[in-house]
Amino acid sequence: MKIGSQAHHSSAISTSNEATILVRGRDLTQELIGHIGFTEHFWLLLTGTMPTTAQRRILDATLVAIAEHGLVPSVQVSRMTLAAAPEALQGAVAAGILGCGSVVLGSSEAAGNFFAAIAAKIAAGLAPEQAAKSLLLEYRAMRRPIPGYGHPLHKGFDPRARRLFEVAAEVGSVGTHIEIARQVERLLPELTGKQLALNVSGAIPAVLLDAGYPQGALKGVPILARTAGLIAHLLEEQLRPIGFVLSHVGAAAIEYDGEAPADFEPTHE
Amino acid sequence: MKIGSQAHHSSAISTSNEATILVRGRDLTQELIGHIGFTEHFWLLLTGTMPTTAQRRILDATLVAIAEHGLVPSVQVSRMTLAAAPEALQGAVAAGILGCGSVVLGSSEAAGNFFAAIAAKIAAGLAPEQAAKSLLLEYRAMRRPIPGYGHPLHKGFDPRARRLFEVAAEVGSVGTHIEIARQVERLLPELTGKQLALNVSGAIPAVLLDAGYPQGALKGVPILARTAGLIAHLLEEQLRPIGFVLSHVGAAAIEYDGEAPADFEPTHE
Amino acid sequence: MKIGSQAHHSSAISTSNEATILVRGRDLTQELIGHIGFTEHFWLLLTGTMPTTAQRRILDATLVAIAEHGLVPSVQVSRMTLAAAPEALQGAVAAGILGCGSVVLGSSEAAGNFFAAIAAKIAAGLAPEQAAKSLLLEYRAMRRPIPGYGHPLHKGFDPRARRLFEVAAEVGSVGTHIEIARQVERLLPELTGKQLALNVSGAIPAVLLDAGYPQGALKGVPILARTAGLIAHLLEEQLRPIGFVLSHVGAAAIEYDGEAPADFEPTHE
Amino acid sequence: MKIGSQAHHSSAISTSNEATILVRGRDLTQELIGHIGFTEHFWLLLTGTMPTTAQRRILDATLVAIAEHGLVPSVQVSRMTLAAAPEALQGAVAAGILGCGSVVLGSSEAAGNFFAAIAAKIAAGLAPEQAAKSLLLEYRAMRRPIPGYGHPLHKGFDPRARRLFEVAAEVGSVGTHIEIARQVERLLPELTGKQLALNVSGAIPAVLLDAGYPQGALKGVPILARTAGLIAHLLEEQLRPIGFVLSHVGAAAIEYDGEAPADFEPTHE
Repeated sequence: MKIGSQAHHSSAISTSNEATILVRGRDLTQELIGHIGFTEHFWLLLTGTMPTTAQRRILDATLVAIAEHGLVPSVQVSRMTLAAAPEALQGAVAAGILGCGSVVLGSSEAAGNFFAAIAAKIAAGLAPEQAAKSLLLEYRAMRRPIPGYGHPLHKGFDPRARRLFEVAAEVGSVGTHIEIARQVERLLPELTGKQLALNVSGAIPAVLLDAGYPQGALKGVPILARTAGLIAHLLEEQLRPIGFVLSHVGAAAIEYDGEAPADFEPTHE
Repeated sequence: MKIGSQAHHSSAISTSNEATILVRGRDLTQELIGHIGFTEHFWLLLTGTMPTTAQRRILDATLVAIAEHGLVPSVQVSRMTLAAAPEALQGAVAAGILGCGSVVLGSSEAAGNFFAAIAAKIAAGLAPEQAAKSLLLEYRAMRRPIPGYGHPLHKGFDPRARRLFEVAAEVGSVGTHIEIARQVERLLPELTGKQLALNVSGAIPAVLLDAGYPQGALKGVPILARTAGLIAHLLEEQLRPIGFVLSHVGAAAIEYDGEAPADFEPTHE
Repeated sequence: MKIGSQAHHSSAISTSNEATILVRGRDLTQELIGHIGFTEHFWLLLTGTMPTTAQRRILDATLVAIAEHGLVPSVQVSRMTLAAAPEALQGAVAAGILGCGSVVLGSSEAAGNFFAAIAAKIAAGLAPEQAAKSLLLEYRAMRRPIPGYGHPLHKGFDPRARRLFEVAAEVGSVGTHIEIARQVERLLPELTGKQLALNVSGAIPAVLLDAGYPQGALKGVPILARTAGLIAHLLEEQLRPIGFVLSHVGAAAIEYDGEAPADFEPTHE
Repeated sequence: MKIGSQAHHSSAISTSNEATILVRGRDLTQELIGHIGFTEHFWLLLTGTMPTTAQRRILDATLVAIAEHGLVPSVQVSRMTLAAAPEALQGAVAAGILGCGSVVLGSSEAAGNFFAAIAAKIAAGLAPEQAAKSLLLEYRAMRRPIPGYGHPLHKGFDPRARRLFEVAAEVGSVGTHIEIARQVERLLPELTGKQLALNVSGAIPAVLLDAGYPQGALKGVPILARTAGLIAHLLEEQLRPIGFVLSHVGAAAIEYDGEAPADFEPTHE
């Protein structure tokens, strides 16, 4: 039964009364806590249905793949913010999440939208290679970067991307989007002159979209995963702080090149 | 082998080279992606060790318990922010996380510190009832609120707290902190004149600390869990927006009572 | 004298030693504190030069115009966040600023870029009306909204926009961008079928660009101005709180329309 | 006239109808835009009254004093965040503001509360020296740091603090809080064994409280001022980026000292 289904302004995620909390129609206490894992709960929250084993394993694999990669910018941001404002762990996490943008971690979303647009062309009748080539040319004409390929450290290939495709094969969830991601990789040298391997931010949306994960929540995967990594770094920051070390070496690396009186001697040089 | 162990400024969470990413000493690609779930990975990130089944189930249960509770303030904040700035999902998530503070979701941390202080008194030789009574009186003397008890909606008892204790019993992880939480609940009517039941923010640190979860990362559990809930709400906000509805009804509910010219007629009244 | 001018990675804003802090080459203590106002300092920080009286008056006028407009979404977000996390005023301000996005307050930037693109066409030889018409048609072809026109409350005209143009005239700073903003207003009924008046987010970039304010910092004006308004609201929130009132009326306005057991009675209905 | 003054839930800051926007009872368009500066507007927003010349000059002086001090942590945080998420300037500003915490910029608030508590003791009859000594001893007994004294770079004295006291003298606004700040400075060597000079975060609340600025909004001054500095840095970041340079030197400065296979060679060493 649906309640309030005529309402113009409504939400289908959760409601409660004094004794019961419903999440996606399930009794939180009796059906969910202690019965399902957090990854299944995340899928349920997003879609309203419980994931299959394959869907859960794919989502787990992407969250594990992207949660942590050392002292990346968002981690440094988060640790510096906690050093300055230790009273508010939530502020340090929020600052780190704000760096999940279009350039760094949010590129999963851009890559997913790119693959989905190619999939739409295939659904409209184009052959896969034609569909991919056609969108690649559109992006190049608009000087838009091709999202999901190349990595500054993992140059030959991104081991996480390769592993995610293996997991998708293991659970029997290889579909159109993974094929498209491979097709684009093959076309890139010819169309761009560069041999760029699929990176983790390209592999994540490919395997998730093939598993039926909602396209509008693609950016949520790196955001949720990195939140776990940030919390680990913020625990470590409390135990052996490096936040101010990071800001000192950062400041020392940048010279001042503005105006100054002739006799002024900067401290850091 | 440990590398660089003499360094003054170091981190033990992750490192990488072109072919390999190590997370807590494990090869991310070969040992973790596709082999463990996200909850296990979170525990590994925090502690450097893999959780036992009991630890993983406790952590899963707390994350599932606190991820979602309807249109609470942080969810409204997040949906309004996405409505105003749809280009930046990360900003909407960050805004929602900023509401995980000392009053609302962050009270898990305060309750955990409260229970840990009682546990320290027990470890120093006091009987459990004496230890709890003693800290309760200290808090009352300093007019500090007792964290982790009472709920505006779930008045008789918080079903999530009860269920978390059941799960702890199921997996054999009932220890000092759960006992302390119960002891405090028994003492509250006598010492405060109020019968307040343990709430979810009190039960979470009790079961986590008994399972060996690190005290300094207690606030991380509601933050990570709510991030999952926020992402679900932000997906729904894209599909059927209510962000501006929320701000309209909010504005309409608050009267202006400052100075005004005699002939001024406000729009909203 | 410039120091370090050969550096690849440098900043020209500020440097210091034990006795002296230089900001844009000026001695902060001897030349700036107590000698100039905050608005002049903001202009100096941005551009490296002191503003003329006209520039300072224009910048003041835009900051005053956009600082406050009642219980708009970002104010509600900020007050709810402080209610939940009173230990971190900076978090409540940050949450409010996150709502200065492309839809609400950040539209100044979009409008400024729109006017600047028309100005570039004029500089390239097109007559003003042709330049404006040409860009309007481009935007319509790409289904991009025309930024800076129309307001849900101030329908006939936005009194702040009109006043900003008066101030620009008073200080003798009417130039190409103000003319373009007027030109677009005249063309809109014919090209869009709608009579939309210039709003404050359109007037701000028009007067600022004519005054020589840097285009890349246009979004900074609503952000800085609203920060002042948010701080005033957060002071009031401490003295007579409404944060939880806002979240209660918000939650009550939205019905749950998901699945529920037949006998479930939600609390809020 | 006051409207709606019986309302339980109300705000006195701003209201509007289609033609008029009232801010603190003033017509925004007719009385404020083009007539007052942003600093006066900020005071009006906070207090409901226009500042005197002395009040405006003190507030300007504090905002100018604290707006900028080179590549401090919050500036680095902000520039790194823009590099990662250039689509959302508001996110980069918010991340920077999140570092205005209890340790770094928010110490103005702690110092103001400390001075106000001493002022309360004086108002209750204690001699100034006794009042200061008494609160200093209380803080030491609770092992609370004394806020507002000492600076890592400006060791002998903080030139900004000295200049703010000069400005207060120039405008005839030297009162109890400035005297208290000096009194504490004199007592510190005897009571703590350290000769620590008043810093800018101590001088700001002293001059502001003497000028009648509201205590609950003290943290708003560094937050608003730094927002101006952050926007200048974010404009520079667009023109000559250093965000990723900062994160690279930061990552290179921190060694990994966790577990690793014997044959693992990290990239950064």
